[in-house]
Amino acid sequence: MSADPFRPAKRVAGQRQDVWSIVNEAALASPVQPIVNMGQGFFGYNPPPFVTDAAKAALDRVDCNQYAPTKGRPRLKKAIVEAYGPFFSTETPLDPDKNVTITTGANEGMLSAFMAFIEPGDEVVIFEPFFDQYISNIEMAGGVIKYCSMLPPAHGSERTSSAADWKIDWEGLEATLEKAGSKVRMIVLNSPHNPVGKVLSKSELERVGELAIKHNLIILSDEVYDRLYYVPFTRIAALSPQLWERTLTVGSGGKVFYATGWRVGWLIGPEHLIKHVSAAHTRICYSSVSPLQEAVAIGFEEADKHNFWDESKKEMESKLHRFCSVFDELKLPYSIPEGGYFVLANLAKVKLPKDYKFPDHVANRPRDFKLCWFLIMELGIAAIPPTEFYTDENAHIVEDYLRFAVCKEDDVLEQAKERLRGLLQYMA
Amino acid sequence: MSADPFRPAKRVAGQRQDVWSIVNEAALASPVQPIVNMGQGFFGYNPPPFVTDAAKAALDRVDCNQYAPTKGRPRLKKAIVEAYGPFFSTETPLDPDKNVTITTGANEGMLSAFMAFIEPGDEVVIFEPFFDQYISNIEMAGGVIKYCSMLPPAHGSERTSSAADWKIDWEGLEATLEKAGSKVRMIVLNSPHNPVGKVLSKSELERVGELAIKHNLIILSDEVYDRLYYVPFTRIAALSPQLWERTLTVGSGGKVFYATGWRVGWLIGPEHLIKHVSAAHTRICYSSVSPLQEAVAIGFEEADKHNFWDESKKEMESKLHRFCSVFDELKLPYSIPEGGYFVLANLAKVKLPKDYKFPDHVANRPRDFKLCWFLIMELGIAAIPPTEFYTDENAHIVEDYLRFAVCKEDDVLEQAKERLRGLLQYMA
Ligand SMILES: Cc1ncc(COP(=O)(O)O)c(C=O)c1O
Ligand SMILES: Cc1ncc(COP(=O)(O)O)c(C=O)c1O
Repeated sequence: MSADPFRPAKRVAGQRQDVWSIVNEAALASPVQPIVNMGQGFFGYNPPPFVTDAAKAALDRVDCNQYAPTKGRPRLKKAIVEAYGPFFSTETPLDPDKNVTITTGANEGMLSAFMAFIEPGDEVVIFEPFFDQYISNIEMAGGVIKYCSMLPPAHGSERTSSAADWKIDWEGLEATLEKAGSKVRMIVLNSPHNPVGKVLSKSELERVGELAIKHNLIILSDEVYDRLYYVPFTRIAALSPQLWERTLTVGSGGKVFYATGWRVGWLIGPEHLIKHVSAAHTRICYSSVSPLQEAVAIGFEEADKHNFWDESKKEMESKLHRFCSVFDELKLPYSIPEGGYFVLANLAKVKLPKDYKFPDHVANRPRDFKLCWFLIMELGIAAIPPTEFYTDENAHIVEDYLRFAVCKEDDVLEQAKERLRGLLQYMA
Repeated sequence: MSADPFRPAKRVAGQRQDVWSIVNEAALASPVQPIVNMGQGFFGYNPPPFVTDAAKAALDRVDCNQYAPTKGRPRLKKAIVEAYGPFFSTETPLDPDKNVTITTGANEGMLSAFMAFIEPGDEVVIFEPFFDQYISNIEMAGGVIKYCSMLPPAHGSERTSSAADWKIDWEGLEATLEKAGSKVRMIVLNSPHNPVGKVLSKSELERVGELAIKHNLIILSDEVYDRLYYVPFTRIAALSPQLWERTLTVGSGGKVFYATGWRVGWLIGPEHLIKHVSAAHTRICYSSVSPLQEAVAIGFEEADKHNFWDESKKEMESKLHRFCSVFDELKLPYSIPEGGYFVLANLAKVKLPKDYKFPDHVANRPRDFKLCWFLIMELGIAAIPPTEFYTDENAHIVEDYLRFAVCKEDDVLEQAKERLRGLLQYMA
């Protein structure tokens, strides 16, 4: 008998239900309505008016409504070079036509990077926990993923401490790279980190950098939360010209300007890497959304005038303080974010009722999925179970945690806190 | 010695200079400035105000600025089902959640379809001439391309006739499909056709449909020019429920609303196909541009009120007439488009000066590249050499043709005509 003519390719087949649809489904089914949603990392408010106004003006311009050049609108590439050039350790100033390429969000930018360099069977190192899209993006290129753990503090279920206390498993990483027959070609960094909130320190980056040079790796540095750091922030491509030469730095207009739906991202790096990323991007999306590229360009041009970067960082840090105070109050430990807008709280102290009925697709997942479901159903607040960002093997490491996104209006944060206070009755 | 650590993957390596950069480079270097650009198929004017106004309004809405659902904004999926549902031969009404998925332009939509169904080594049939992105999109999925010719009229260099006179090589197609060991899984149709301007007739579609059923193929029907037809237009998924069951129909908000830079496309089809396309799209772009999805939704909702579809078709047809009159005047034959906005003109009668100096990357391409270069440099008008849409083997078939895009302001068309009159001095 012949095969099913409509069978999907392996790369899209047989995935289990993803976390986003489980959370949405629960949110719809919850008796507590409306749900306070601190799950997905979208903003609960609009981009700043100087950016949306720029977008509206772009919509009146013929050239802005038509195909952008495949590598991006010239004004955006120039604005990015001006905004980011000073950060990097380059021997000559950045060239907008050679050192930047615009992509459809950071996401498609990273896919383009994998598509540009990874042949089937090549290996890519990512840290665990990982941003979930890395997996499918690497697999799409036929890459094989090698995991390096970032381990939570041993005291994570007892006391609050800095996200800095999550530690890279250096021996594990070195073992992966030294292994005979290793085919590692790229290593993916993410700082500030989703979901941990860790900002990789200069010395950690130096150590990664040494390994990358020793093993001749391309570094893909996902820095989409680069404007939100509450401790000193170092970019690996800033450490030395040798590291610049092998690093692709990823950014996101959606993240920096509170517009995750705009799908404008970029990669910055040396020409010998960028040109292949551009080629891959052209084959994937052809070009990226034109009027919103113009708006992001104007956003960069005008950000300083509005003191936007400082305000933005201050505002997010105050949201983090505002929200995390509820965990202090409840004596639930958490990792104090060094950057970004996610908080990992440890709910080991919360006792789920023994006879509580979870649907099958939740019951057969780790405890954090049950915590997530329970919070939605009983308290009306949604957060993300972080085992989704782990391999099955290591999921147990974070099964007491939940991830909360604080990029929401202050009154939503207050509502969230009020609902979380309902946890008290489930704590010993 | 170890391999170059920065070597690109095969899928992006070693492409020759693409037609767009050759044309742009020539345009910049031309002594005649500014160039009248009838090359790329972007519009020389803005989307209708009811659509740009909708986009501006969306930019004031928090939900429209944040991530859209991966399969698309509900309002757009609903609007598409309402606009397109009546066209198709389905046994039950279309379901916005099951039969539509929104993509980042038609382009990434087609890539998603190939990624969803093509395993390395699987074959895909496309017609030659082809839209150039098909090639890299299919190769990205590891697919092997099988070409089926669409042959120009034998009298193409002598007299003007309908684009309908381009004929499918049925024997060739059947031979490909019947071949022992054939691994063809998909066939790609494009109607109205770029660059030929042909609208596939009902009987041609029936014949393709029979073959698709016989050989159990998925049909990917690229109908991005579906609102611009000047002869009766048939959709293959409208012919029978059997064909609907195996067809993915591709559309483009950029093409229908004059906004190629917006990157909003869609695929419509049966759930058993659409769900895998959605899965692939999620892995490629995550989600597509949110505020412009809302605007396209409103565009569909309000199009009839503005009599937009009729006006749009009438306007483009009148542009075609306006522009083609210059070829009548010059006695240069062309294919009269049945749909879309491209005209293929045959310039066999134009004698290029014997000693004319072409740069190497043009000199070693077929005659149409030389015609293209010559028109830009001597007359200041850009068109596209259609051998770019052919395999090397068959390029000679169209080396006397150039493709002109008429989706430009009327005064630009008049300027273009004036410049083309300069050809007279190069004609016998
Ligand atoms: C670490 C990380 N990288 C990349 C992205 C994707 O960014 P974009 O929305 O620009 O595609 C996200 C979004 O959540 C993220 O958390
Ligand atoms: C035949 C054909 N299909 C698809 C596309 C791409 O459409 P979009 O801009 O929506 O990606 C084009 C654009 O020129 C085209 O001509």
